[in-house]
Amino acid sequence: MKLYDWHAAPNPKRVRMFLAEKGIDLDIVEVSGEGLRLRKDYIEKFPQAMVPMLELPDGRQIGESMAICRYLEELHPAPPMLGRNAYERAVVDMWERRAFDEGMMAAGEVFRNTAEAFRERGLPGFATPVPQIPALAERGRERLGHFFRKFDRQLAGHRYVAGDQFSVADCTAFCSIEFAAWSDIGIPEDCTHLDRWYKDVGARPSARA
Amino acid sequence: MKLYDWHAAPNPKRVRMFLAEKGIDLDIVEVSGEGLRLRKDYIEKFPQAMVPMLELPDGRQIGESMAICRYLEELHPAPPMLGRNAYERAVVDMWERRAFDEGMMAAGEVFRNTAEAFRERGLPGFATPVPQIPALAERGRERLGHFFRKFDRQLAGHRYVAGDQFSVADCTAFCSIEFAAWSDIGIPEDCTHLDRWYKDVGARPSARA
Repeated sequence: MKLYDWHAAPNPKRVRMFLAEKGIDLDIVEVSGEGLRLRKDYIEKFPQAMVPMLELPDGRQIGESMAICRYLEELHPAPPMLGRNAYERAVVDMWERRAFDEGMMAAGEVFRNTAEAFRERGLPGFATPVPQIPALAERGRERLGHFFRKFDRQLAGHRYVAGDQFSVADCTAFCSIEFAAWSDIGIPEDCTHLDRWYKDVGARPSARA
Repeated sequence: MKLYDWHAAPNPKRVRMFLAEKGIDLDIVEVSGEGLRLRKDYIEKFPQAMVPMLELPDGRQIGESMAICRYLEELHPAPPMLGRNAYERAVVDMWERRAFDEGMMAAGEVFRNTAEAFRERGLPGFATPVPQIPALAERGRERLGHFFRKFDRQLAGHRYVAGDQFSVADCTAFCSIEFAAWSDIGIPEDCTHLDRWYKDVGARPSARA
């Protein structure tokens, strides 16, 4: 199996963290090209034009980070990264989704709508120009404030995002916070639980995946 | 188990379609209140302030539509709505995610940023005002055009969104198109495969769930 990757991007990193935690070794194919764009031969191969993408030995393709993680969890169940029973799986899924929708998406709203290199690329996966929306960048900043505080409250009572076990929800939340830092937005000083968790996760080898 | 529901909203409907297809009968608790807002007692119970939410008999809460569906799929595996093996599950997950991110989110961008009743409520789940962004409504319209065409291409070669089997990806895509219609945006005339599928799904009893 091959994982098509853009090493610098936040979505592929959450999948690489997942792989590192499980000790899964895949062929990694870097597909970033000139001008911070995906390589044309990759877009021809995978018109969805996003990373990461998992290619099976017979050529079948699986896109979307969590679809890739769930597929690999079925093939390599240990250590469990999606929960150990039906209820835990639901809670991991719920918090992973919140980390993505409220953290990763908000960080993306700020970055995609302000970075000079993405001036006509307000959304990923589009061949046509998508103008930046300054008001959306501003809204993204405010959403990140809510995200930090919501996750700080959750981590006041739990070692990890979805409870006592490290899970893919931690990978997504961690990569969202790294992504926010691209726009010089950091964890607020009063979010001490989130900061404790962020340092804890950052010390894991998978944080450098 | 109880499902907290807002009957008119698109996200709870995709879960109700899922329940109807499986023949699962849950207690449905309607939580819409005055002024198209969630009831205050529901927000106190569930500060995430979104619908749907599944409450287990012991009071534990599961939010996020797909986390709810995955949990119920484990309890009631038949008929399978998330795929029958690891690869099918990945493909259903991938297409469900695209239906949500590219269809439901785009329809929400249009509706939330134009409807008078949502003037200070550009995002769900916020207690503080979130001003509407007219440019985001416009971008949502364009994204819906891409969504219709991408799914039309997929349905040119497949009976259902994720292949030959009806799945939760169909529920999300169907509810996204219903949601787009709230803003008077319909399937383009040349998307004949999507139109064929939409009529086919609309004829299922679950479409009136």
